[in-house]
Amino acid sequence: MNCVDSSEIFRSESPCLTETVISQPSWALVLETREEACVLKAVGYRENLPITAEDALIDVEIPMPTPKSRELLVSVKAVSVNPVDVKVRMGVSPKAGDVKILGWDAVGIVKDVGKDVTLFREGDEVFYAGSITKPGTNCEVHLVDERIVGLKPRSLSAAQAAALPLTTITAWELLFDRLGVRPGKRPDTGSLLIIGGAGGVGSMLIQLARRLTGLTVIATASRPETAAWCTDLGAHHVIDHTKPLGQELKRISISNVEFVASLQATDKHLPTIVQILKPQGKFAVIDDPPTLDINPLNEKSISVHWEYMFTRPLFETEDMIAQHNLLNEVASLLDAGVLRTTLRQHFGRLNAANLKKAHALIESGRTIGKIVLEGF
Amino acid sequence: MNCVDSSEIFRSESPCLTETVISQPSWALVLETREEACVLKAVGYRENLPITAEDALIDVEIPMPTPKSRELLVSVKAVSVNPVDVKVRMGVSPKAGDVKILGWDAVGIVKDVGKDVTLFREGDEVFYAGSITKPGTNCEVHLVDERIVGLKPRSLSAAQAAALPLTTITAWELLFDRLGVRPGKRPDTGSLLIIGGAGGVGSMLIQLARRLTGLTVIATASRPETAAWCTDLGAHHVIDHTKPLGQELKRISISNVEFVASLQATDKHLPTIVQILKPQGKFAVIDDPPTLDINPLNEKSISVHWEYMFTRPLFETEDMIAQHNLLNEVASLLDAGVLRTTLRQHFGRLNAANLKKAHALIESGRTIGKIVLEGF
Repeated sequence: MNCVDSSEIFRSESPCLTETVISQPSWALVLETREEACVLKAVGYRENLPITAEDALIDVEIPMPTPKSRELLVSVKAVSVNPVDVKVRMGVSPKAGDVKILGWDAVGIVKDVGKDVTLFREGDEVFYAGSITKPGTNCEVHLVDERIVGLKPRSLSAAQAAALPLTTITAWELLFDRLGVRPGKRPDTGSLLIIGGAGGVGSMLIQLARRLTGLTVIATASRPETAAWCTDLGAHHVIDHTKPLGQELKRISISNVEFVASLQATDKHLPTIVQILKPQGKFAVIDDPPTLDINPLNEKSISVHWEYMFTRPLFETEDMIAQHNLLNEVASLLDAGVLRTTLRQHFGRLNAANLKKAHALIESGRTIGKIVLEGF
Repeated sequence: MNCVDSSEIFRSESPCLTETVISQPSWALVLETREEACVLKAVGYRENLPITAEDALIDVEIPMPTPKSRELLVSVKAVSVNPVDVKVRMGVSPKAGDVKILGWDAVGIVKDVGKDVTLFREGDEVFYAGSITKPGTNCEVHLVDERIVGLKPRSLSAAQAAALPLTTITAWELLFDRLGVRPGKRPDTGSLLIIGGAGGVGSMLIQLARRLTGLTVIATASRPETAAWCTDLGAHHVIDHTKPLGQELKRISISNVEFVASLQATDKHLPTIVQILKPQGKFAVIDDPPTLDINPLNEKSISVHWEYMFTRPLFETEDMIAQHNLLNEVASLLDAGVLRTTLRQHFGRLNAANLKKAHALIESGRTIGKIVLEGF
């Protein structure tokens, strides 16, 4: 922020705000009446460029936003980086002259609330992923609908908590809302194969399935360090997805599985997935295969479940508050020591230079757990 | 049967059986020791021909089979014709010289049982669809695993009951096992769109959804007589699938639906299905689109559920007996007047000439309800 220290920005004596505007009801009006708008540090892009390009991501300044209806105004402390950031950076063009702000994970402090907010108040520490339809969290201050926000787990640092929301929502919705697995050790006693266990979603899915259900958890990983990470998070078995998965399952004396969570390279693995799923099995997908022809799943009456964690905020579904509830439940489980953070790498302050390093690592496909950036 | 009247075939004094073989434990041995094998009337085909060809279906005679393990030997009284008969006749080639017997619906009387049978005994009247891996029911006598057989509804004639098993199993599994709708008027209060309401599966699915669940049932039909049939079976609304389905839904003041059962022309309707399904909706499919690319369902986190009623017998799943249970439950509901038969046309005795007329009508795509043949 170019006009005030970040710790000061919400005090009425902030140099951003002149005497004449303190009585104005909203930040928008404040900005209109100032000679020079109060601006915030952010990282974004103007055009779709490879991550090696100088301007693939740029430091920018944006005006202070105003919370409306059920929105919270959050002072962002830490963010994490997800594959969706890379996809949007490469595939979504801002309008000419505009800057698009990425980032769909944040930890921060509520600084102001819209008039219809009931779940939070100023000073609450929160964590959330946000909505793909809104500007991202890579900014000092961010607006988010309260129904998709949870209270930050108290026992975790800002960076440890920032690693979690997007992947946790994805893993939770995939396991309980899409595949329909019931929490509890008894109800489901089959096996879940997680293809791509060491990534962000896999790292949380392994934990949820192992700690909260009765499933046997099989994760795939192809390197010693990713295999060790999956085992450490609770996978009963780790198999190698660079080898034929059917053979790998036989090696651990499992002939077929009730559930598959395909988190990466679904098109490559599809024929094997059809083979190893039991008749009437369930198959969840989160990645972006060019096409996904499910005719081969007919004979076994298999169901295919898309999990896209932005569906609820994107369509503002009636059950959108499920994300608030699940984030709060996961925060309790983290504080109780049942689950743990998937943070692996802290890339320093949030600026274009550091964020470019994070994007480059995501693009390599070799990320383990999550990458976080903290402070401005 | 060329050696005995069909009412006589199971008496030991049958002329099929000589004195020397009455003490033999199985029909197989009986057949081996006879000068001329006891043969049964059946209808089948030797090569894949259009239904207008003279030999598209032929009258043949086959030897008496023997029930093993959990098999029942059933004297077939009536059968129905399903689209699967046409698909197999057109697409599956018998080995050179062999005759393939079609037919996956029967009503009959149990005449003999394998040594491990526990659910039925001689004299039981039964109805069932059978297994796609076994010879079909278009034969005087048929073998079937007891776990996929139900007791024939007492209040229905053989023809009325023969109309039901395959389509009832499909509709029941689709609604309760695949889409996961819970029986009872309260739990689910959304809408189910049935594309192709007047066919065999649609005719039973309308009834199950209307009578046993709390769903609003919308069926599609394109002709006055099919629309009237759907309404008569219990559909709350009937819309026309030859018009844009989104517009048709608006006409009945429904903007979108929680469940779609696509029973025909799924590839044609797919773009509209994506539009009209609610986010997180469920989509069941039973037909044979050339390909089924489900990428467009990603954004709404929609799940796609194949229902193939032969999955359980084909893979001999652990829960194969679910088909026995559901057929018995449906028989009770039929006898109680909650459900009714979907029989519309009786095509006379089961022979090649009559069966060819039935196949031709199925191929026209204009069948309403079910076609049955009865007696030999």
